[in-house]
Amino acid sequence: MAELTHFDEGGNAHMVDVSGKAVTDRLATAESAVKMTPETLALVTEGTAKKGDVLGVARLAGIMGSKKTSDLIPLCHPLPITKVTLDLTPDASLPGIRIRATVKTSGQTGVEMEALTAASVAALTVYDMLKAAEKGMEIVQTRLLRKEGGKSGVYDISGEAQS
Amino acid sequence: MAELTHFDEGGNAHMVDVSGKAVTDRLATAESAVKMTPETLALVTEGTAKKGDVLGVARLAGIMGSKKTSDLIPLCHPLPITKVTLDLTPDASLPGIRIRATVKTSGQTGVEMEALTAASVAALTVYDMLKAAEKGMEIVQTRLLRKEGGKSGVYDISGEAQS
Amino acid sequence: MAELTHFDEGGNAHMVDVSGKAVTDRLATAESAVKMTPETLALVTEGTAKKGDVLGVARLAGIMGSKKTSDLIPLCHPLPITKVTLDLTPDASLPGIRIRATVKTSGQTGVEMEALTAASVAALTVYDMLKAAEKGMEIVQTRLLRKEGGKSGVYDISGEAQS
Amino acid sequence: MAELTHFDEGGNAHMVDVSGKAVTDRLATAESAVKMTPETLALVTEGTAKKGDVLGVARLAGIMGSKKTSDLIPLCHPLPITKVTLDLTPDASLPGIRIRATVKTSGQTGVEMEALTAASVAALTVYDMLKAAEKGMEIVQTRLLRKEGGKSGVYDISGEAQS
Amino acid sequence: MAELTHFDEGGNAHMVDVSGKAVTDRLATAESAVKMTPETLALVTEGTAKKGDVLGVARLAGIMGSKKTSDLIPLCHPLPITKVTLDLTPDASLPGIRIRATVKTSGQTGVEMEALTAASVAALTVYDMLKAAEKGMEIVQTRLLRKEGGKSGVYDISGEAQS
Amino acid sequence: MAELTHFDEGGNAHMVDVSGKAVTDRLATAESAVKMTPETLALVTEGTAKKGDVLGVARLAGIMGSKKTSDLIPLCHPLPITKVTLDLTPDASLPGIRIRATVKTSGQTGVEMEALTAASVAALTVYDMLKAAEKGMEIVQTRLLRKEGGKSGVYDISGEAQS
Repeated sequence: MAELTHFDEGGNAHMVDVSGKAVTDRLATAESAVKMTPETLALVTEGTAKKGDVLGVARLAGIMGSKKTSDLIPLCHPLPITKVTLDLTPDASLPGIRIRATVKTSGQTGVEMEALTAASVAALTVYDMLKAAEKGMEIVQTRLLRKEGGKSGVYDISGEAQS
Repeated sequence: MAELTHFDEGGNAHMVDVSGKAVTDRLATAESAVKMTPETLALVTEGTAKKGDVLGVARLAGIMGSKKTSDLIPLCHPLPITKVTLDLTPDASLPGIRIRATVKTSGQTGVEMEALTAASVAALTVYDMLKAAEKGMEIVQTRLLRKEGGKSGVYDISGEAQS
Repeated sequence: MAELTHFDEGGNAHMVDVSGKAVTDRLATAESAVKMTPETLALVTEGTAKKGDVLGVARLAGIMGSKKTSDLIPLCHPLPITKVTLDLTPDASLPGIRIRATVKTSGQTGVEMEALTAASVAALTVYDMLKAAEKGMEIVQTRLLRKEGGKSGVYDISGEAQS
Repeated sequence: MAELTHFDEGGNAHMVDVSGKAVTDRLATAESAVKMTPETLALVTEGTAKKGDVLGVARLAGIMGSKKTSDLIPLCHPLPITKVTLDLTPDASLPGIRIRATVKTSGQTGVEMEALTAASVAALTVYDMLKAAEKGMEIVQTRLLRKEGGKSGVYDISGEAQS
Repeated sequence: MAELTHFDEGGNAHMVDVSGKAVTDRLATAESAVKMTPETLALVTEGTAKKGDVLGVARLAGIMGSKKTSDLIPLCHPLPITKVTLDLTPDASLPGIRIRATVKTSGQTGVEMEALTAASVAALTVYDMLKAAEKGMEIVQTRLLRKEGGKSGVYDISGEAQS
Repeated sequence: MAELTHFDEGGNAHMVDVSGKAVTDRLATAESAVKMTPETLALVTEGTAKKGDVLGVARLAGIMGSKKTSDLIPLCHPLPITKVTLDLTPDASLPGIRIRATVKTSGQTGVEMEALTAASVAALTVYDMLKAAEKGMEIVQTRLLRKEGGKSGVYDISGEAQS
């Protein structure tokens, strides 16, 4: 059975010692999505052009949110992030907004949580910007898509453990 | 068509003026869930008893996260929260962890974002605690369940606009 | 000679007691400006349309910055801000960007520092966004334009002590 | 025409990838100034001796502010600062307070924004400490004086592109 | 046996509901002390005059620390503090520095933790400023001296439950 | 006489330049303790089993607090912490809770303040969780036990300057 690294042998939470791990380039990509009615989605797609840039505000919130990851997630190590990008795309088939966040660092531990936090904060911000129009929106499918770097190598959701 | 209150007439983002709104008791309840394999869920349910309290750590992260809402969501007003509770429940039928967050304040604007942020940060923390065991977990169905207080009255997901 | 309220009789810094002051509606407006070459200004005005929204990013930074005022300014009281707006306007005669920030609260102390901080953080962000093009930009004339509320009444830069 | 590095080809804001840049010693010096009446300046110069240390408080605020730069400026990378100094000097010819901030790091990106933020927060704090005496003070001439390190080499305001 | 209000009936941590409590004036005073050798204490007392203001820096750190209390203590409510003072006094009989912090608010819950946090952060800062001279210093006797306001009335360490 | 490194020759506070110091592995261990009545201690020891996990909450607060050290202590350098552990042990002979915190980093400056801050925040949180039962608790003996790494080598409280 897999071991929960965030607890010691006594079952007490700790911030695990990564001081012996190699400094390598790390990358993680995560996604999230906000499901809404076609009418609400129209507010976004029209708004971007002329009434208010929902996606621009959410993108910035996601970038800034990724920098707060170790503040939010109790056992996360603080990391010097070297890149954050967020793509927010209207998707009429959802209908809603699809979010993809990519984070890089060069360090001793991965940036999965930074990418997931960026995507989540962007999704929450989309909700906040549109909640006056629709309270029933739903944030769905927040998950890790890909992870590179570190001893465990590449993880890709389309098939684990590539190398 | 509904108006996006976070933008002015020129389409520029602003923190909307709530100074004219009444101070009323406000409550919001939100939920989220983390879907995982039965094997990962077993780590949580066994761990709570003897190996490490995943749910206790996530609960605390959610409570502390709700206090950072106005820091994370660009156009949110800072609010003096008067109560936060988080319930985290293992659900074998998911399989995974169900999260429910309730936040109260007495103020001029609602606490939907505080409740949604609490639930999201708790879900991210569950992911973080368990990711050594399973990277493919997914955060699903983050949404507002209920909102009370303010001019718009009660919103309940089971049927809007009660009073 | 005026008294420096942030020090006690012994000359020690303290956060002054405002518990006896009335809760009144408070408003403050501050301005700042970033001076640059006409070529750099052209990057902003063209960029807003098609290459990147410098002013939108700076506006958001200013709004979020105003919420951190009591974190940045040692003796500032934390305040429940009820409104923040920022106007950023290209001005060919400067040449550069003019920034105006307005903040409101209902409380026991004024929001001058919140408005000045919002304007300053927006100005710093304009600098950051454009520094790859021009390092010699200058932030000029950050000052309070107007203040309403509290015992001292209205202050307006165009002529003090109106009422 | 210079390129705005904080936007991608689609014009979307991102935190630019610095992971491929060399880790070098970086230094930046910025200045700011707070202009006031001779009477207000006298409060500072006399106060330092016996009534309250305005410059000491502002110096500390500037140092602490520089550590919050990546929190305030949306697209700034978090950086492990290795040195911060602030000089605050009364200048009767202004009249007012001149501020100079120097920041160092060893990293993949420069510390211009950290130095400018340190100077700005110190200036705002000077304003806060003295606003009971004079609301009409003005923060002037916040600008970068010098930058060392990184691919672009030395920038000095007295004549660009030394090497 | 007294009840631990920070846990619900199931033993789960929560931020307790204070929304039904009266808004009253609240005050708390706490103390702490840093014990050191007479030689180290001499560095402080001489330094205040001419080499560096240890007590001034620690005082400011304590004031700013009190504003971070709800960020640091997981189940603390965020509170609009209306006053913070810190007295730091060299005491040759300790030998060392005695710290006393007083915090006020008008709210639904007390400010004991804000006063204790202010005193603790000031004590840690004294340690930091002097640790190059002496690593063996000790922070002793951090405790609540007095509390006013709220249903439980006055608590004073010299004899509980005055009224 | 030892020199206070946090001040320059003019007696002004600064964040000392560590850019020339070697990057070495650093470790620090600190302790603190919360003294209480046997009745209050019984609430903790019984509560851990069935009524609420005081020590688990305090442990997490200490871990998260260590990450805020450079935010709290004005002249501390921000550091990429690589490990934090906290042990909290009931001690009937105190009577009360003993706290021990260990922090590691690989950097240019030590982590004494991070370990002391972790221990202090955990102690404050123990107080907060139990103050409904006993206001007279006291935080005692917060001190550095051991420090490794850096030019000054090993410090151990049981006898300085081992190597």
